[in-house]
Amino acid sequence: MGYQWPQDFDKLMRNFLEPRSIAVIGATEGAGYGGRMIDNLLNGGFRGKVFPVNPRRSEVKGLPCYPSVLQVEGEVDLAVIVIPARAVLDALQQCKEKGIRSVVIISAGFSERDGQAGIDRQKQLRQFTMDHGMFICGPNCLGVSNVSEKIHANAGSGIANLLPEPGPIGVVSQSGATAFGPILAKAKDRGVRLKYIASTGNEANLESADFIRFILDDPDVRVIAAFIEGFKEGEKIKTVADLALDRKKPIILMKMGRTEAGGRAALTHTAALTGSFKVHDGFFRQKGIVRVNDYDELCEVANLFSKGKFPKGDGVGIISHSGGICTFLSDECSSEGFHVPRLSKDTTGKIEQILQGWGSCENPLDLTGFARGPQFPEILRSVINDPNVDSVILATRSDKEYAENVIKAAGETDKPLLFVWTHSEFDSEGLPALRAGGMPVFISPVKCIKALKHLRNYYKIVQNHHDPGREKVPPSSLPSSDPRIEQVRAFLSQESSETMTEGRCREILAPLGLPFSSSIVCQSIQKARTTARELEYPVVLKMDSPQILHKTECQGVRLNIQEENELTKAFDDMIVCWRSLDPPVTLNGIMVQKMITGGIELILGVSDDPLFGPILMLGWGGIFVEALEIGAWRVCPIGQQDAREMIHEIPGLTKILSGIRGRPPLDGQALVDVMVRVSFIACALKDLVSSMDFNPIKVLPEGKGVKLLDSRMVLRSTKTLLRSNT
Amino acid sequence: MGYQWPQDFDKLMRNFLEPRSIAVIGATEGAGYGGRMIDNLLNGGFRGKVFPVNPRRSEVKGLPCYPSVLQVEGEVDLAVIVIPARAVLDALQQCKEKGIRSVVIISAGFSERDGQAGIDRQKQLRQFTMDHGMFICGPNCLGVSNVSEKIHANAGSGIANLLPEPGPIGVVSQSGATAFGPILAKAKDRGVRLKYIASTGNEANLESADFIRFILDDPDVRVIAAFIEGFKEGEKIKTVADLALDRKKPIILMKMGRTEAGGRAALTHTAALTGSFKVHDGFFRQKGIVRVNDYDELCEVANLFSKGKFPKGDGVGIISHSGGICTFLSDECSSEGFHVPRLSKDTTGKIEQILQGWGSCENPLDLTGFARGPQFPEILRSVINDPNVDSVILATRSDKEYAENVIKAAGETDKPLLFVWTHSEFDSEGLPALRAGGMPVFISPVKCIKALKHLRNYYKIVQNHHDPGREKVPPSSLPSSDPRIEQVRAFLSQESSETMTEGRCREILAPLGLPFSSSIVCQSIQKARTTARELEYPVVLKMDSPQILHKTECQGVRLNIQEENELTKAFDDMIVCWRSLDPPVTLNGIMVQKMITGGIELILGVSDDPLFGPILMLGWGGIFVEALEIGAWRVCPIGQQDAREMIHEIPGLTKILSGIRGRPPLDGQALVDVMVRVSFIACALKDLVSSMDFNPIKVLPEGKGVKLLDSRMVLRSTKTLLRSNT
Repeated sequence: MGYQWPQDFDKLMRNFLEPRSIAVIGATEGAGYGGRMIDNLLNGGFRGKVFPVNPRRSEVKGLPCYPSVLQVEGEVDLAVIVIPARAVLDALQQCKEKGIRSVVIISAGFSERDGQAGIDRQKQLRQFTMDHGMFICGPNCLGVSNVSEKIHANAGSGIANLLPEPGPIGVVSQSGATAFGPILAKAKDRGVRLKYIASTGNEANLESADFIRFILDDPDVRVIAAFIEGFKEGEKIKTVADLALDRKKPIILMKMGRTEAGGRAALTHTAALTGSFKVHDGFFRQKGIVRVNDYDELCEVANLFSKGKFPKGDGVGIISHSGGICTFLSDECSSEGFHVPRLSKDTTGKIEQILQGWGSCENPLDLTGFARGPQFPEILRSVINDPNVDSVILATRSDKEYAENVIKAAGETDKPLLFVWTHSEFDSEGLPALRAGGMPVFISPVKCIKALKHLRNYYKIVQNHHDPGREKVPPSSLPSSDPRIEQVRAFLSQESSETMTEGRCREILAPLGLPFSSSIVCQSIQKARTTARELEYPVVLKMDSPQILHKTECQGVRLNIQEENELTKAFDDMIVCWRSLDPPVTLNGIMVQKMITGGIELILGVSDDPLFGPILMLGWGGIFVEALEIGAWRVCPIGQQDAREMIHEIPGLTKILSGIRGRPPLDGQALVDVMVRVSFIACALKDLVSSMDFNPIKVLPEGKGVKLLDSRMVLRSTKTLLRSNT
Repeated sequence: MGYQWPQDFDKLMRNFLEPRSIAVIGATEGAGYGGRMIDNLLNGGFRGKVFPVNPRRSEVKGLPCYPSVLQVEGEVDLAVIVIPARAVLDALQQCKEKGIRSVVIISAGFSERDGQAGIDRQKQLRQFTMDHGMFICGPNCLGVSNVSEKIHANAGSGIANLLPEPGPIGVVSQSGATAFGPILAKAKDRGVRLKYIASTGNEANLESADFIRFILDDPDVRVIAAFIEGFKEGEKIKTVADLALDRKKPIILMKMGRTEAGGRAALTHTAALTGSFKVHDGFFRQKGIVRVNDYDELCEVANLFSKGKFPKGDGVGIISHSGGICTFLSDECSSEGFHVPRLSKDTTGKIEQILQGWGSCENPLDLTGFARGPQFPEILRSVINDPNVDSVILATRSDKEYAENVIKAAGETDKPLLFVWTHSEFDSEGLPALRAGGMPVFISPVKCIKALKHLRNYYKIVQNHHDPGREKVPPSSLPSSDPRIEQVRAFLSQESSETMTEGRCREILAPLGLPFSSSIVCQSIQKARTTARELEYPVVLKMDSPQILHKTECQGVRLNIQEENELTKAFDDMIVCWRSLDPPVTLNGIMVQKMITGGIELILGVSDDPLFGPILMLGWGGIFVEALEIGAWRVCPIGQQDAREMIHEIPGLTKILSGIRGRPPLDGQALVDVMVRVSFIACALKDLVSSMDFNPIKVLPEGKGVKLLDSRMVLRSTKTLLRSNT
């Protein structure tokens, strides 16, 4: 299932991250990219063979230099190309001839430059690698590092002083200057230990998801930290994300592109509201990918996750020498959904005996001077072991001995213990000792609590993912095997209009079990009258025209009609109104629909994401949906748990569903069911339908279900110019 | 106007921050508070006289020690008390006898300890100072510092290595351990220069606002940084905030207490929705107080503001050596409301000549290797001087020479230039050089853009505040001089019921020019019929009872009645319904009201804040107001600009008012007018009225104004138990 990597994927990827011999095509003496590559390899401690290649030199940095890679004797695992763009293809050709199939291209001057000419140059590279089964990392990247093996095949500048200790984190970054700049610097500064660093640049061939895929197999790597501008293949990253969840290896990810490019065609509300940021965000939530906002956070959160200890509940024990910091941390905990529980009587009793009235023996524990007294380890252990506490934050400063005590206590528990350092970051005693001992240390209390929140959320997602009792999301192919789906597909294939009216949506989709509101499209007032009587008043009238996207804007809707005279007048008025529309539109008829009162209005829709395919969106209905832009997004199909999380993500919705201010509780389960169903239908029809809108849908009181009050569907290859604003 | 400080305020405050002689009552040899106080004074470089006082010693740390402060020869500007709580009052008595009127009390053991006994001890202190015209800082504080004058009258621990350079920032913190811990450490680590540090502890007498008030007069201080748990006197902080705006001295403030204590009586929606955090936040926005979330941010933002350069517009020029960092920064800029404008042709032309096709000569400028080339200063100047650019962010690393170039370029412009440091924070060359040269340096790109946003917002508020053309907010006393107000006050004073129904609100408040919807309370069906005919159908019926707070919850509202038969039936139904209520409620009658359609529903209300007095709240109407908790809050009275900002603060409202999806634009100006008017009425009636609710109010299409569709008012000293949920 999912994306299939080629058979020799592992072998070729290993050449990048564990090469035993490296040819540097474009090696130079100076401090340019070609020189830095050699320096970083040699000074970094590479134990394999380095072959500088440069026809204008016989020696580079003390190593014999070859005129071409073909002249190199012996096997070359990895070639690195650091020559002008125009010569890269020739060099690649020579690599092929030499039998080298893994190549890092540092050279810039491809799709990022010279407009179409650059794009074409990059396409040539891509084509060449595809034709010859080669793997390229780059172009326009800075290369890769294997910190554990001291292989620094990168052209990073000034990295000698930035090399971190080896450890359990694999870093993948599209931006080379970020990977071998701030990320490396943060890791070094904050004692964050890395195993791999890969920069992927323009991604002519390999993309970040490929490196993540490979690194996930490494038993030493416990966490992936990624710095990403975008993904190229949706199936690939979906497969990687699933695998990471299966393996319980968290992906911590910083993704650029929070602001929307805008300008997308907006044939349906859902499509207009669904920007790339929201889709990515929904996908990350769905798959337990931890999104962070800064490279600081990327390193600190990855570091925290790499400790492998997760909070089983929301109770946080807080310890500090300062009442102000206690308040600050408690405050942050509450606003992030944690609680700062009372400690058990046993614990407070023990602590009270020590404090003798100075400081607080209740959580948060303002220990005043005792925070650094000889009995501190005893206090710390009591708090850690308290049954109400699921994780502990210790905010103070420390000397070496204190650090040892803390590290010892942390080692004895499965609960996460986080340290907030309140002193100077230039401290040369306690702070390095804490880090060396593996304590996750935070400088900012706010970031500490945020990181703890990530840890807690991830734990829940992983628990749910590995819960043997959880309902599995059936593979997306399943519903299409349903005979009713086949029938719907047949109808849709024959459909001439590209936007389908409410009436038509209902006709076609109703057999799939969607709870449409009762309605009939009528071509005469007589028919309308009969229909209204059958449905029972009050009813609603609506123009049914494929060219009208927003019916209310052209008086195409009349709500709450109580009896026949009113119906007749409203019907006539609507016909008059339709005749006056300029430009004129086709009318299938006027729909008579049962008026549904009570409950709340939401919008549920599906749009088509270029990367991830069909995306389900749930949001507040009415003008709020547009004005507030509040909604939740997920990649289809979704499971019941996903649906519940989407509901939870929409501010106020959970509250309203449970019934506020004496209102009855609403049918949340019916909402979940319809969401899951729509998501499956979207997958089954994804090659035919580009978007669907159910707007509004009404969630009725418990037991009464959900009703779709209006629907619209846009089929693929829409060319018709739509009337959206008159 | 505003809060009046005592006449000798300046003199007594100066004793705290510029004392020439200090007695330390409780001086000791060890490393306890009394010893640290002496150490910090002596090692910090205090040039005045230090008098240790301790009856058990003849010498402390090499200084002669006095048995009591009364034995000290010569004048003592400041006494510091560091003895057990029980002995503090006696020491204070001796200070009084010695003529010392400014006293720092470090001793703990007051309101923070021992429950009522501690509170009483603190009350005694307070009473003593009030009786004798003394000023106390503390108790339970850590003291004060004047960094410029090297006066460190504090008991901070290990501060010797944390002393920052003297500079233009005054720090005021309630938490001593935070002021002389992380804040000092951040300031030192990040080259942030301070003049004063004052910790105020339990605030038995002086509170943080007093220190801010004093420091605002200091010509050397350009910025106040405050770390606050809460204010004690609303008038005081209001006056201080106004003064800071007048003087253009920004207050950067970190306030604890983001999460609500909850449990407040909720007689009106407004009161239920108005928590202390929201009120404070509204007040800060109103007064240009910059709220930050972390002590890191407190230091960095204060530092940025202290440079005194403000962005005149939203255009940001971004320069880096890395494309990834350029994208990151652009992204953050857009999501914070800035734009990254195209540069003028002139600028790009110049830069293009330098880059020759390598890197980007468009904003954001990815300069690749040129970011550190010899022509960089030229590029930097071109960007700074570009007319489309209002501020510049430079994200890279630097050596000494580079730092000098950047500092020089920054010195030549009024536009803010912010540096994002992408390398190790342990760099010992460029980073210290940048900081020494006065560059505002940020470690996190996210925090840099956030800080720039604060800078931009503050500039707008100050510009508006100092705009000679702006409409001034009349002092709150003004409306009460209006004869109509006098009449309303007379009515209210005689009112027997404490909660006033819609009908009564309308009767009493209508003369003040509030746009109530047309309605009459009717005691018979005959009267109701006549009224409905006069108002013209459709109409609304409502129960008018002082005991019913939420009419819809007991079928007390019937909307959209179209004609007389419907009216009769609805009237009868409502009477039946009223009779069935258990417990029974009084009914003034049934209100017949004109049904208003179109427009949008909001809630506008006033609640009573214990600190700030009447608070105006605007929010979305309907169930959204409760479920989403979206609203904007300001301290009454407000001006038109405040009202416009409140509207802008409510997500989606500005968009909806301007007309979306073919809807007509709505009467935003009428909304502004009614908000300002209600805020003035609230001030004029504040001693009589504890809350008002106009819920919903309808904002109609432009030119059609605003209508108050329902109202409720609660008078002070409400004892009646209200029926809020049946």
